[in-house]
Amino acid sequence: MNCGEGIDTRLIEELFINLDPIQAGGRLSADAMKAVLAYGDGYSVCDNCEKPFRLDCIKKPPLARFHDELAKFLNMDIARLVPGARRGFQAVADTVVGKGDPVLLTAFSHYTEFLSVEQAGGVPHEVPANDANIITADAVASRIEEVTRSAGKTPALLYVEEVDYQYGNLHPVQDIARVAHQYDIPVLCNGAYTIGIMPVDGKDIGADFLVGSGHKSMAAPAPSGVLATTSEWADTLFRTTQVKGDITGRTFGVKEVEMMGCTLMGVTSMGMMASFPHVRERVKQYDQHLSRCNRIVDALCSIEGTQVMSEYPRKHPLTRMNTTGSFDKAAKTNKKKGFFLISALRERGITGIIAGSTKVWKFNPYGITEEQARYVADMFLEIAREEGLPVKSG
Amino acid sequence: MNCGEGIDTRLIEELFINLDPIQAGGRLSADAMKAVLAYGDGYSVCDNCEKPFRLDCIKKPPLARFHDELAKFLNMDIARLVPGARRGFQAVADTVVGKGDPVLLTAFSHYTEFLSVEQAGGVPHEVPANDANIITADAVASRIEEVTRSAGKTPALLYVEEVDYQYGNLHPVQDIARVAHQYDIPVLCNGAYTIGIMPVDGKDIGADFLVGSGHKSMAAPAPSGVLATTSEWADTLFRTTQVKGDITGRTFGVKEVEMMGCTLMGVTSMGMMASFPHVRERVKQYDQHLSRCNRIVDALCSIEGTQVMSEYPRKHPLTRMNTTGSFDKAAKTNKKKGFFLISALRERGITGIIAGSTKVWKFNPYGITEEQARYVADMFLEIAREEGLPVKSG
Repeated sequence: MNCGEGIDTRLIEELFINLDPIQAGGRLSADAMKAVLAYGDGYSVCDNCEKPFRLDCIKKPPLARFHDELAKFLNMDIARLVPGARRGFQAVADTVVGKGDPVLLTAFSHYTEFLSVEQAGGVPHEVPANDANIITADAVASRIEEVTRSAGKTPALLYVEEVDYQYGNLHPVQDIARVAHQYDIPVLCNGAYTIGIMPVDGKDIGADFLVGSGHKSMAAPAPSGVLATTSEWADTLFRTTQVKGDITGRTFGVKEVEMMGCTLMGVTSMGMMASFPHVRERVKQYDQHLSRCNRIVDALCSIEGTQVMSEYPRKHPLTRMNTTGSFDKAAKTNKKKGFFLISALRERGITGIIAGSTKVWKFNPYGITEEQARYVADMFLEIAREEGLPVKSG
Repeated sequence: MNCGEGIDTRLIEELFINLDPIQAGGRLSADAMKAVLAYGDGYSVCDNCEKPFRLDCIKKPPLARFHDELAKFLNMDIARLVPGARRGFQAVADTVVGKGDPVLLTAFSHYTEFLSVEQAGGVPHEVPANDANIITADAVASRIEEVTRSAGKTPALLYVEEVDYQYGNLHPVQDIARVAHQYDIPVLCNGAYTIGIMPVDGKDIGADFLVGSGHKSMAAPAPSGVLATTSEWADTLFRTTQVKGDITGRTFGVKEVEMMGCTLMGVTSMGMMASFPHVRERVKQYDQHLSRCNRIVDALCSIEGTQVMSEYPRKHPLTRMNTTGSFDKAAKTNKKKGFFLISALRERGITGIIAGSTKVWKFNPYGITEEQARYVADMFLEIAREEGLPVKSG
């Protein structure tokens, strides 16, 4: 089957166990798949849009209720849907960062966080990680002092990733936020890898702004995400339009400036909403997903010369491995060179690792079953043995 | 069937002829429906993302080619996908409008155009329409002079809607752009109601920035849209990131600041792309869609006391009617009051008109068949007769 001229049907999730670092949490639930079909058409959620004419007020389909539940789920006061976490960063930066303002990010901040600062005209400064690749509250305190001294004012905003995209490490956001608040710096917590995957309590960690990604971690279609805030910041971040047509006298009701009015008018909001009950349940089973991840990491580490570069035991399934002393040695003699690993995995029905990588690579086994985890672990060992790499007995 | 907890399946397009003003052009093609199913999962288009790691460079699925074809289709030099036309307005405003800059919009500008100006810190000024509800080049020239005098500088940007959302009238963008360019004012043409519906030639009309809506007029899921520009503006509008991590030394490649990097990473870009061959064909049949619209307007106008408020004959199927002297009279005696009209239409398998409206209302018959158009025309007359309203014989 194809989906029109030159477009093959995507079958990755049907044919493989997919360990792709960014795709694991965004696979649709069966309900989301149904919603996607039923609400595929453009403005499909607008059939019953009534006053005050805003996405988060639509009662049928129950988007209003979904917005409320989403805020509660995150333990924040108010939530809005956004076209991807990046549009959440943009809305916050545009609200609190002025031209030339210093802004703190971390050594693990995502490029989209940097872009949001750049677009708002802010000047980014990073907080370094420690030797264990963790951003500590002490490091944040030092950088606040340094940057404040050099810039002549305190940073306008601090971005911190609850789990980062490089190591998948869990950072002490609560401690970090406490420090930032001592300097009256608002905190944007990037939960793109956590919201929808593990329990996240916005108030508890002290986030002024909490951002999640639908397509990365909430079993939703792209682009989708959530931006939540506290009642303290709600009126500022979600300020409604104040402009007026100078000839017609038109005003534009309660449309929110940073949201550009409505955000996800069809398939994306419906996919998020249909998956939400499943997402709410799956975060309660987080420990199982971690133990499956650890099983695979253990198997990999039993191959001599292999190291896990992420913190261990794993606190998040996104994991960075170093196989320079194992699979990369094999790559030197294998006729497929560095491509032997992905090739051997695909022959065994596994995919998602960057083709050609045998030194440092990431994988994310989130969402696979116990049996699949055992299978993946076994297959890594089988490939190692086939390549003549020594495996420590477990 | 439902799509999860409390979510009913949407069946509007299956059960009714839908005349909704904003939904007509956004119904998916069959190919888009297939693409939506096959690419529903989060980051579904990223399986083969290679250097330089940007959505518009992905070869499989053929997004790179789609971007090129889209630019050609619009006769512009370069095109990018955006999460809705509004995000296109935002990118342009953020690029060319500085704090306090005067900006020209029209009496028919959409609220999202105003929001984009507000977000960029610009000061909006409207160009009035003439008595026929058309924005003329002369009116634009006068307002440029007035606003320049009062603001002390020429407007930073002019927004003009090729077809407006209130009357569905076609405005002389080419003449308007010529005037604006005489004052070196760049022109953003809002093609949300035209791109994907009728032929649009960006260079011919003189657009510096051309914005279209996927979910409104390109048979695509929401949120989706296109932002195209000329080679003259491309490097400014699609400027790549210049920031650097001050500790890690990280730079962020060719990610475009205003796009926030990648934009539509899954179902939305795939839906647009799968529908594109159909969209390209359907704009060639534009005259047929207009004649079907005119047939319905003619029928309505044969009901005594009914007026078409849009220009006539219609140049776009989005149409504004005034039935204060006909259906609204009937509403005064009907036990369903103003709801009798939508109720009578729904009984006949027609929907999309605002429930309760019997004075001024809009409809958009785009995409219906010849037979359906005849049926809709007949049903309006049947309802009028049923209510005892005099109908002129045709």
